[in-house]
Amino acid sequence: MTLTTYDIYAKKEVIAMENESEQNMGTNEVKMENIVYIGRKPTMNYVLAVVTQFNNGMKEVTIKARGNSISRAVDVKEIVVNRFLPDLKEKSIKTSSEELTNEDGTRSKVSAIQIVLMK
Amino acid sequence: MTLTTYDIYAKKEVIAMENESEQNMGTNEVKMENIVYIGRKPTMNYVLAVVTQFNNGMKEVTIKARGNSISRAVDVKEIVVNRFLPDLKEKSIKTSSEELTNEDGTRSKVSAIQIVLMK
Repeated sequence: MTLTTYDIYAKKEVIAMENESEQNMGTNEVKMENIVYIGRKPTMNYVLAVVTQFNNGMKEVTIKARGNSISRAVDVKEIVVNRFLPDLKEKSIKTSSEELTNEDGTRSKVSAIQIVLMK
Repeated sequence: MTLTTYDIYAKKEVIAMENESEQNMGTNEVKMENIVYIGRKPTMNYVLAVVTQFNNGMKEVTIKARGNSISRAVDVKEIVVNRFLPDLKEKSIKTSSEELTNEDGTRSKVSAIQIVLMK
């Protein structure tokens, strides 16, 4: 695994996750999926997504990110808790490794984080 | 706080942290400080630093990072646990916000992570 392929795939995954995130936001009331996937958009977009979920009555929201977006996920959590919803509790922070299959059939590992906030 | 100043200061801090990290590694046996600060060097440098600490008899090692290095800190933890020392336990993962004073006197916030691994 070279850093280059890792980066390329991290970028692809992020795009996929952003699309997923938009779908989730759109069909939120139907699916009740309270997961915000962090991609490469400005941090405040995701902060607003999390705050909106809690304002819509969610008791728990999960922030997920992979690769280079992990730093942004921590930013989102810190901004939500420190600036907008100071009463939130941190239920859990977990890290993991996910395996992706590259186009040439090789496999790359990418780190992931999952932060669960609750009212 | 604009994203630009944030980035500039994150970069400055990282350089400071790398120096600090090198000092810690050099004087480790004297100070018994088992903290590995993650900067912008290759991930495997930090992986080796953590593995070495455990091999030198440390029962607990703390991985710390700020700003954009947070993603690398998670990579380090995942590689150490999955590839080198599978018996390690994750004692805690905490995130926080730290405030830095810029050269012009304004203050910027930067996210930080602290991962504690134990035997």
